[in-house]
Formats: sequence, structure tokens, C-alpha cells
Amino acid sequence: MFSSRLKNLVPYVPGEQPQDRKYIKLNTNENPYPPTPRIGQFLNRFDAERLRLYPDPLFLSLREKIAGRYGITKDQVFVGNGSDEVLAFSFYAFFDSEKGNLLFPEFTYSFYPVYCDLFDISYTKVPLAHDFNIDIAKIMDAGKSCGAIFPNPNAPTGMLLPLEHIKSLLAGYDENNVVLVDEAYIDFGGESAVSLIDQYKNLIVVRTLSKSMSLAGIRIGFAMGNPGLIQALFAVKDSFNSYPANVLSQEIAQIAFSDADYYNAVVEKIINTRTVLSKELKQIGWDVLPSSANFVFARKTGFKGKEIYLKLKERGILVRHFSTPGIDEFVRITIGTDQDTTVLVKEMQSCF
Amino acid sequence: MFSSRLKNLVPYVPGEQPQDRKYIKLNTNENPYPPTPRIGQFLNRFDAERLRLYPDPLFLSLREKIAGRYGITKDQVFVGNGSDEVLAFSFYAFFDSEKGNLLFPEFTYSFYPVYCDLFDISYTKVPLAHDFNIDIAKIMDAGKSCGAIFPNPNAPTGMLLPLEHIKSLLAGYDENNVVLVDEAYIDFGGESAVSLIDQYKNLIVVRTLSKSMSLAGIRIGFAMGNPGLIQALFAVKDSFNSYPANVLSQEIAQIAFSDADYYNAVVEKIINTRTVLSKELKQIGWDVLPSSANFVFARKTGFKGKEIYLKLKERGILVRHFSTPGIDEFVRITIGTDQDTTVLVKEMQSCF
Repeated sequence: MFSSRLKNLVPYVPGEQPQDRKYIKLNTNENPYPPTPRIGQFLNRFDAERLRLYPDPLFLSLREKIAGRYGITKDQVFVGNGSDEVLAFSFYAFFDSEKGNLLFPEFTYSFYPVYCDLFDISYTKVPLAHDFNIDIAKIMDAGKSCGAIFPNPNAPTGMLLPLEHIKSLLAGYDENNVVLVDEAYIDFGGESAVSLIDQYKNLIVVRTLSKSMSLAGIRIGFAMGNPGLIQALFAVKDSFNSYPANVLSQEIAQIAFSDADYYNAVVEKIINTRTVLSKELKQIGWDVLPSSANFVFARKTGFKGKEIYLKLKERGILVRHFSTPGIDEFVRITIGTDQDTTVLVKEMQSCF
Repeated sequence: MFSSRLKNLVPYVPGEQPQDRKYIKLNTNENPYPPTPRIGQFLNRFDAERLRLYPDPLFLSLREKIAGRYGITKDQVFVGNGSDEVLAFSFYAFFDSEKGNLLFPEFTYSFYPVYCDLFDISYTKVPLAHDFNIDIAKIMDAGKSCGAIFPNPNAPTGMLLPLEHIKSLLAGYDENNVVLVDEAYIDFGGESAVSLIDQYKNLIVVRTLSKSMSLAGIRIGFAMGNPGLIQALFAVKDSFNSYPANVLSQEIAQIAFSDADYYNAVVEKIINTRTVLSKELKQIGWDVLPSSANFVFARKTGFKGKEIYLKLKERGILVRHFSTPGIDEFVRITIGTDQDTTVLVKEMQSCF
């Protein structure tokens, strides 16, 4: 009863959202702080009769708000049902292995190979440098390709690629192949590549409101790039679902973009906690990669990631581990509140 | 810069959602009445801090609620971001023209051929009977196929296929091919095929909360079928977007399912208005197909659908027309309030 396509799928497995007990939840890179209080005020006054109508299929108000924030125009902005949907549409629209393999880092967001399977795209995993940095030279040397994609900062390492490196990739790479920079975590300490979209017509930058804006629950992501790329994403969206972003999420997202001061303060707190956590983990013998994201990637000699994960889970703390050789000694720990961090460091000291 | 897939796309064009002036909006089959007041109460008390966390990727509470409503189990229920997304996943999972063409009615939901282009599925349009009914015998005689899909009631005709006809199709059709019944409008006067999913493992029934439940704005649709089919839909979803249904929409949908009395009254009002509108249009010389949906499909000798649409739009009323030969004389008119109907009939009488 199933299509032959279905046989190729190896679905992505998201971090646990357990219902059995209350955990200190440091496993899915959610923000420990609430979204701007203006959102609560909006919902508390919302006229539910409006829900009887379809949402704007073109997301015009939200795209204008995003364009204003980044100093671009609304025809350079696409919106989707979380950045995962924006990524899926991008894979469909831009990457075609008739031209060559898609390139992405060996250790990166594990949804990328899943999208490749979904749309039958061949790919090449480009090794990281020895220090776990993304190495632009290795991407340039990877041979015939149909495009390149990487998160910046990379996940699950948390390590930032300086904007200069992205510029040099774009300057040297085939301008007929799309370069997608997935900036889910850029607000936690990096410089966005959105400043380059006018210069490089083959650059697309993808963002989410799930991390720095504390809105994982509403499922809004967006892409910024030249209008031709944006039109292609609309063509895919309009062949899949005319209305992927519901009324409430579109309006909540606009409110979030209206309160930069609040979010700047939230991001600053998370960066400070990351500095403290990294320092304290190092003091008790952990190896912590330098993070520019809202998580750290850490290991301790003699332990496997799975073992660390299981012991912390017993103690009521959820972190994420990966079984992929090369990163299976690490755990990825979301930055929580200062209080979460105190409990975490205490447990990590007593367990390992 | 684009994939070869992109060249095949001819996107679906949804009904207008104009922002320029206030219309009597009878063009996208929205419900003229608000959703249950319990939803407003829920939103007005909602704690927005919860939005910082991801939604349940398995939609467990909502699936349990839906299963309870239809007397099935939650492993027989899938949820998506509107029924359009559920349909897209179904096309991907079930229909593969290596086995034969996908069958659907000649005049039907115009998104079906778009999904076929999206996933490269060949299709055969099966002619309707002369009275615009779906003719099961013609589906059975259409030759080698990989599955069949039709809305019931059909769109844009509004005409209902009695459950007995669906049973006879299922009894005679290849049990290795999926039959998808798209029941977006079934609550307005039809008998659901969900009662047949235990007996026919190849039957999948798709529903939406956008029509009878007045919730087009939240984007929730669902599918019901045997657990093997549901698992296949989860495999596609987990290869596309782990969290397609946001927190607010999942909970609003549950509330809607808790207030059957309210919605029964809404549906009754719409059916009554449909009866009045159909009768009045016939009295002023219109041909109106017998509708079991929340819209009517009507024509008047000497006029084209586009002409009717344009004249009504000038007068502040939006309806939908189609340029496809065979139905280009019709307009599809959503059932509005009684007041909308009075204005509509007056304008139709004076214009045509």
C-alpha cells in the first residue's frame, strides 16, 4: 500500500518531550525564559471569532516586520511553519543531485540527511577541522556539488564560523549553486550572513523564532535571500499547503519582533550563563567546545555520551547525546537558568 | 540555482483573502459563525510562558480526543498542519505511479493534481456522471491504478456520494491500493466513511477543523485509518517537520472537540440557510446542484462563472469561479449567514 519513496525514509528523531515526570529540560535547546510579556497580553485580549477565517497565505504583515528588522524588503523574506519546514522547502527547491552532491559538515544538524532521503538528494559529508570547526577549504575542495548547507553556529558543536569565512566561501563557490546558512542560533553570539544577500544571489539565510525568541511552541521560521530564491520557496509552499502559518503564530511572531529590548536582555542572560557553565565544567575536568549558541557540547575522558545522558536523566536532568562515532563521547547541554546550571554542575561533579 | 523538481510545479491558487475592502466573503468556504466560546475563554487565560517549549510532536492528547469522538483508537489517528498538509503527506506515502495512475474525479479539489506534480505522480481524471455525481463504476473501470482519492461531498460540486457507493468501491477495488476519502465537508450532511476503516485496511479518511468547526485560522487537519497507514504518515512527517502542529492549535482543537452541542447547532443553521439559498436561487432562474456541503455550485444560462464573479465582486460579494471547461459556467458560493444570503440573492436577482 506504500510508495517506493517511503522505503527510503529514515525519519529524524527529535529530543524527548517526556510527560512522565518533571525534568530540568536541557535537551532541545529551548529558551529557559518566557517570550515577551506583550504576547500574553495579546492572547488574553484576542477575539477568537477571527479564527473562523483562513490566515494570510502570503504572511505580508509578518514579512514586512521581519524585513524592517533586518533592513531588507519583504520580497526577500519567506515564512514557514518552523525553520524545519523552511529547510524542507529549500531542499526541494534548490538541491538536485543531477548537478552533484549536496555538501554539509560531517557533524551537523542530523535532519539534513533526512531531507536528502525525503527528496532523493545525494550528499557528501565534509569533514570538520581537528578542532571541530567548519573548514571552508574542505567545502571548496569537495568536488562537483549542487549546493552547500551548514548551521552557523554549527549544531551540535555550537562553534561559530566567522562571517569572513562565509564571504570567502561565497566568493569562491559556483554562483549557480545555493549556499544555505542555517542561523537558528546566530543571536547567541554570531554575526549574521543576512548582510550578504544583496551581494550574493545564491545565498539563503534561514532563521527560527524557537530559540532566541522563546517561541518554540508557535512554529515560525523564515528565510531571507534574493527575491528569485524567495519566489521558488513560495512555489513549493503553494504546491504543498497554501496556509502553513496559522493566524495566532503569525501575529505572535510580529509582537516578538516589536520588543527587541526584552530579547536582547534574555540573550545576554543566556550568554552569561553559558560563560559560567563552560568555566565551571572545565574546572571539574570537562572538555567544553567554545560555544556561540544556547548550548554547550562537552565531554569527559572515560565516559560515553549515552552513559552521561542516562545518569543525568536518573537525576532529573535531560541532556542530548548522539550515537554517531566521532561525537559519541559528547553531550549537548542546553543553557538553562542560573539555577538549572547550579543543579547541573553539582550533579555532573558527583556523577563523573 | 533551482532543482529540476521545481520546473514541474504549477502551484495551487487559493481563494482571495483581500485586504483592500470589506467583502461579504463567500469564496473560501469558511464558516460564518465563530468557534465555540470556550476557545476564547482558553486564550484569554493562556499562560504565554508555555510557548517557549516545543509542542508534543506526537499530538497525543489531541489524537486521544479525536479517537474518542469517532470511536476509534489513537493509533488510527494522524494530525497535521491543516488537511492540506495531511493530504500532501498522504500523496507522498501512498501514491506511486510505478503501480499505475492515481485516480480522481475530473472536477474535484484542484490541489490534487498539484500534489501529483509535487511528487511526480501520474494521474487519470475520471469523468463524472452527467448529473455531476461521482460514478464509482467509472473509477473501477479506469484501469491499472495506484490508488484513488475524492472528496465526499465532492468539491466544488457539493454533491454527496452515499456511503453504500464507497463500500462497493472498497469491496471491488485492489486492497493493495489506498482509497483516500477527503471529508472536509462531510459534517454538512453526509455519512462518514470512518465506520469502514476497521474493515478496509486500505481506506484513509481525511478531515479538517476549518469548515464545520469554524477554525480555518488554526490549521488543524487529521487522518483516520488503520495503524499501518498512520505510521506511514508519521514517517513522512518525521522526515519533514517534527512539530507541524503548534501548541495553541493543538489545544484549541481539543476544546473544539469538547463542545459538540455548539457545533451541531452551527451546522444546523448552515444547512437551513443552504436550503433557503438553493430554493431562492432556483426561483430566480438559477441551476443549483444538490449540495451536502457548506457551499452551493450554481449557474445561470447565458453567463460565465468569471462574469458572475466579477459583477458580484463589484457589489462587495466574493464568490469563486473556475476557468476549467465543463464547470466554467458555475460559481461556488459559500453558505454565509442569513443576512449575507439576503444581500446575495438580491444582488444576483438584479445583476443577472
